Amino acid sequence: MPKFSSIDDLRAAVSDLPAANHEVADQVAGREAQLTKPPGSLGRLEDLTAWLAAWQGQNPPRLEVVEILVFAGNHGVTAQGVSAYPAEVTAQMVANFAAEGAAINQLTREAKANLRVMPLSLDTPTADFTEGPAMAEAEFLEAVSAGYEAVPAAADLLVLGEMGIGNTTAAAALSGALFGGGARFAGTGTGVDDAGLKRKRDVIERALQRHSGAIADPLHAAAALGGRELAAMFGACLAARHNAIPVLIDGFVSTAAVAPLKALRADALDHAHVGHVSAEAGHCLLLRELGMTPLLDLGMRLGEGSGAAVAVLVLRAALACHTGMATFEEAQVSDKQVSDKDA
Amino acid sequence: MPKFSSIDDLRAAVSDLPAANHEVADQVAGREAQLTKPPGSLGRLEDLTAWLAAWQGQNPPRLEVVEILVFAGNHGVTAQGVSAYPAEVTAQMVANFAAEGAAINQLTREAKANLRVMPLSLDTPTADFTEGPAMAEAEFLEAVSAGYEAVPAAADLLVLGEMGIGNTTAAAALSGALFGGGARFAGTGTGVDDAGLKRKRDVIERALQRHSGAIADPLHAAAALGGRELAAMFGACLAARHNAIPVLIDGFVSTAAVAPLKALRADALDHAHVGHVSAEAGHCLLLRELGMTPLLDLGMRLGEGSGAAVAVLVLRAALACHTGMATFEEAQVSDKQVSDKDA
Repeated sequence: MPKFSSIDDLRAAVSDLPAANHEVADQVAGREAQLTKPPGSLGRLEDLTAWLAAWQGQNPPRLEVVEILVFAGNHGVTAQGVSAYPAEVTAQMVANFAAEGAAINQLTREAKANLRVMPLSLDTPTADFTEGPAMAEAEFLEAVSAGYEAVPAAADLLVLGEMGIGNTTAAAALSGALFGGGARFAGTGTGVDDAGLKRKRDVIERALQRHSGAIADPLHAAAALGGRELAAMFGACLAARHNAIPVLIDGFVSTAAVAPLKALRADALDHAHVGHVSAEAGHCLLLRELGMTPLLDLGMRLGEGSGAAVAVLVLRAALACHTGMATFEEAQVSDKQVSDKDA
Repeated sequence: MPKFSSIDDLRAAVSDLPAANHEVADQVAGREAQLTKPPGSLGRLEDLTAWLAAWQGQNPPRLEVVEILVFAGNHGVTAQGVSAYPAEVTAQMVANFAAEGAAINQLTREAKANLRVMPLSLDTPTADFTEGPAMAEAEFLEAVSAGYEAVPAAADLLVLGEMGIGNTTAAAALSGALFGGGARFAGTGTGVDDAGLKRKRDVIERALQRHSGAIADPLHAAAALGGRELAAMFGACLAARHNAIPVLIDGFVSTAAVAPLKALRADALDHAHVGHVSAEAGHCLLLRELGMTPLLDLGMRLGEGSGAAVAVLVLRAALACHTGMATFEEAQVSDKQVSDKDA
């Protein structure tokens, strides 16, 4: 039995979200103000420690267990020639993850994180969504449930990543369904040429047309236009919220995957930060729709959770400052001058 | 005897700069293209490995010895009330560095780097540059030489940081001398109020006026308007170039400190990247003048090398991918499709 047995069941889970612990966040901000630096001079690092504490509900926050989950799925829409790589690369890359040969393996080590890769029915791609819904309701709920149940309750931070040839097409279609504007979220993905990008736009426009009746609802849009790995990231992000685990979202596909949460409920991604802005054109547009500011902008566009894994290093830096620095009092450093003359 | 005994001697050293090793950079780029990811999909991480290799002159590049040098100096111009903190904080923070209580201590540990703090004649602040040159030629050359000689030849990467109450005023004045526009580089520094910012602008305008005869030359500008810690960073950055060591510049003050190198010779900062863009208003303007794109934008404005230390983590991530990833051939992953239909 999957965790979620109906769309209504899932919808109920999304409507029942715990809030941040503001008391703990205030305690953390209070300590930040006493540390030997001008107030606010560590910029976003200071915000990040308070954010971690608020969603973990503990002071100081911790990053002992950082869990990177990479979900992989295959997409029937690849039949339309929307990717620069053949569909078998999804499974080949999953083997590469297992052999520790991919970028995310190296970045997991740098981030002192745990990596778990979950291939989702790779031998049974989702349906070509230009012809019908990518997933039937039961398939969608199974993938959401798999993602939900993959999140270890003991994690201090969850990083969401994905692998799936064709999935920037799914992400762009889903983003278009949620925020309008047709194929404007389409980009070159792993590297299609101009003709490929034109095909991709056309595929997205046709899909949005075909499913226009169903996709006004974010969950139905995710089933009709998404993919198993996107559904699993949706489920994992929801599980993290229910388990007081802050989340780092990666690039375009993982942001699109969790975007339906925000479409369902305005505060549903408050426990998440976006690790980086991808060079994939649609990501910047999508982040603007979501009102989220990425931590890094390094021109990356690989997926696998790679950009978010680099952002884990920023979180670790923030936490190291917060927990390791001396206060003005401890270090006997003079605090800010108050007289106007010397200010 | 200081390393540089005259301004002409120093000028000669700046005119004699080794070039990058393009052959080695091409080898590194060649390997990047074979790794199991779409070409270019690691974005700036790929450029950074090639840059490290080009300036180290070795393939693969290494980050075994990462040296963070923090120079500290005191500024006579603090008498004009340009800082939110009293001048004695410089020495107090140097003590805090020694006691491992500052942000840079925690970030050094995260970056697996070595930290060396060099206080430069803190008991003898530079002269108030609204009244005369901050440093006499001999004082300036001594500080440049101290910075030059502080760079260990065995370093794989040099990170430049600083501490000095009043030094954003010096950095803004020096930037104004090099790139024009008067006091436009002035910002709130450690946190002056509106009245303090007005005083700071006025101080800078007066200094640029008073020294207008001398400061057309970048080295004379650095002596008249800079400070010992700025001069030392200038020297260290030059030494790094002579010793095939890539450099990470930190924020506004460290960028202003090395800017005279670029004013003297257009390619003199090619071995350097800027770790982050500071929230200090002048930094963004200065980077535009220098044509440099920072690696991070996290709203930090602490100095101490803190932003650059966080950027070291990005370099480590880049190198880990470059050296650890499997090639398409090793991993038996299908490469990009070439047929137009499937692109």
